[in-house]
Amino acid sequence: MKQGHELTRERRDFLKEDFSRGFVQFCGINSSKIEKGRFESTVTIGENHRTQDNFIHAGLIATMSDHTAGYAAFTIVAENIRILTIEFKINFLKPAYGNALQCKSEIISAGKQIIVAQSSVYDIRDTGEKLVSRSTITLMAINQDKL
Amino acid sequence: MKQGHELTRERRDFLKEDFSRGFVQFCGINSSKIEKGRFESTVTIGENHRTQDNFIHAGLIATMSDHTAGYAAFTIVAENIRILTIEFKINFLKPAYGNALQCKSEIISAGKQIIVAQSSVYDIRDTGEKLVSRSTITLMAINQDKL
Amino acid sequence: MKQGHELTRERRDFLKEDFSRGFVQFCGINSSKIEKGRFESTVTIGENHRTQDNFIHAGLIATMSDHTAGYAAFTIVAENIRILTIEFKINFLKPAYGNALQCKSEIISAGKQIIVAQSSVYDIRDTGEKLVSRSTITLMAINQDKL
Amino acid sequence: MKQGHELTRERRDFLKEDFSRGFVQFCGINSSKIEKGRFESTVTIGENHRTQDNFIHAGLIATMSDHTAGYAAFTIVAENIRILTIEFKINFLKPAYGNALQCKSEIISAGKQIIVAQSSVYDIRDTGEKLVSRSTITLMAINQDKL
Repeated sequence: MKQGHELTRERRDFLKEDFSRGFVQFCGINSSKIEKGRFESTVTIGENHRTQDNFIHAGLIATMSDHTAGYAAFTIVAENIRILTIEFKINFLKPAYGNALQCKSEIISAGKQIIVAQSSVYDIRDTGEKLVSRSTITLMAINQDKL
Repeated sequence: MKQGHELTRERRDFLKEDFSRGFVQFCGINSSKIEKGRFESTVTIGENHRTQDNFIHAGLIATMSDHTAGYAAFTIVAENIRILTIEFKINFLKPAYGNALQCKSEIISAGKQIIVAQSSVYDIRDTGEKLVSRSTITLMAINQDKL
Repeated sequence: MKQGHELTRERRDFLKEDFSRGFVQFCGINSSKIEKGRFESTVTIGENHRTQDNFIHAGLIATMSDHTAGYAAFTIVAENIRILTIEFKINFLKPAYGNALQCKSEIISAGKQIIVAQSSVYDIRDTGEKLVSRSTITLMAINQDKL
Repeated sequence: MKQGHELTRERRDFLKEDFSRGFVQFCGINSSKIEKGRFESTVTIGENHRTQDNFIHAGLIATMSDHTAGYAAFTIVAENIRILTIEFKINFLKPAYGNALQCKSEIISAGKQIIVAQSSVYDIRDTGEKLVSRSTITLMAINQDKL
């Protein structure tokens, strides 16, 4: 990684807390694990997360995948850098219908401006966990002053 | 379109109502206009839809884009057909920060099983509306009995 | 478009010629029409373009979609700007098996650095032309000096 | 994998040979390693593979990523199954300029009809190899009789 800023304990604590605000807090998605270049989150599934067919809505899975990827990017940049999503692409591999979702995001490429992450979402079922989506997220690192 | 089922008034009324349930209702997204092969939706933006930086969250835009595309697909298939999202890809063209979002989805290709839709989301600002995202959604039409 | 450089006749003639070099020339893809924010190309199909199943190879369609989108971007930027493809996503809507392909690319969003284009490829058959692919291409405009 | 057909020695030899025909042969891309659910290919770079700026053309990288993914899918299905690309999305992580490219594809999800693969392309340089692209390919398995 070019953007090799150290992930201090203070920064990690800040990102952990900062993760769940606004729409993400509304959706009930929380950070669970943070390392340099990696971020994990979870959401306990309720009625508000489902579709007409009782599956977990693709939109929730996409939201989680994008947001967690963005925070994985935050772990490798300086504190004055903002992260914007340029685009993402998500494949839904299996229907999700479990009790919770877990998202694992990791940075797969870090340029000076363009950062690419991959998110994997697991459906936590009574019978075990299953990979239900895989996504690639293209992010842009922008100096706060230029926003 | 191969799947040339007539869009009856009853079907249109059903889809209009059916659109906003579960996660989509929770997000406050509502159907606004339905034609054969086209579907539109809107959401009035509140605090729960925003990010840390006060922009509208990409996850809400993605949810709206996917769900509205799925309902555009419902307008061209028989009533016993379920629509699943195989994958989607979304580009965020500009930051969204307005009072409401409008999503316009249209079917661009309809095979027997694979249906492809395009969604455009507009940010409704005091100063006018701006295209803020464009997405392509690959859907699968499945007979209810095979689900 | 922010990047509102005039498309002079000299620039248009240069881009028309410059389009077909290296791999693109090798594939036999040529420019056909240039306007500001739009670019078109064509390729006459030979045996070298096909797959085992005698369809036109997805890789040729993708190459054409990407390259033509890049040249659409060149029509809106200054001469010292290079265009790099960050990523693209392409849907294959129907099998292509005709005598030629035509690609139409247009810029759908132009930021200072990130330009997004859409390409549509048509299969030219004895019986008429059919849209066989739709793609979205994310490009980056970089000052030549910074490359 | 649901589609758990054994990969016999005969099948492997057939796929190895069958891989490089038509457009892929024209591009000089060859199979290099085959396992169940995995396929690798290589191409030695010549002048015909480059762009105006002397980088390796994104279209070649995309062609290789798509085609190798398709053959990874062939390793897990019965012999009467054809594989079609529904769509793919590719991120270009770094410019490629080396002497050869190597592509590694693996199946990440295999449903009855929809198979999802991931391809990674490495640029083989004098100084070592670098990951230059990552792609996700959605494939459809179709019975030959229904094609």
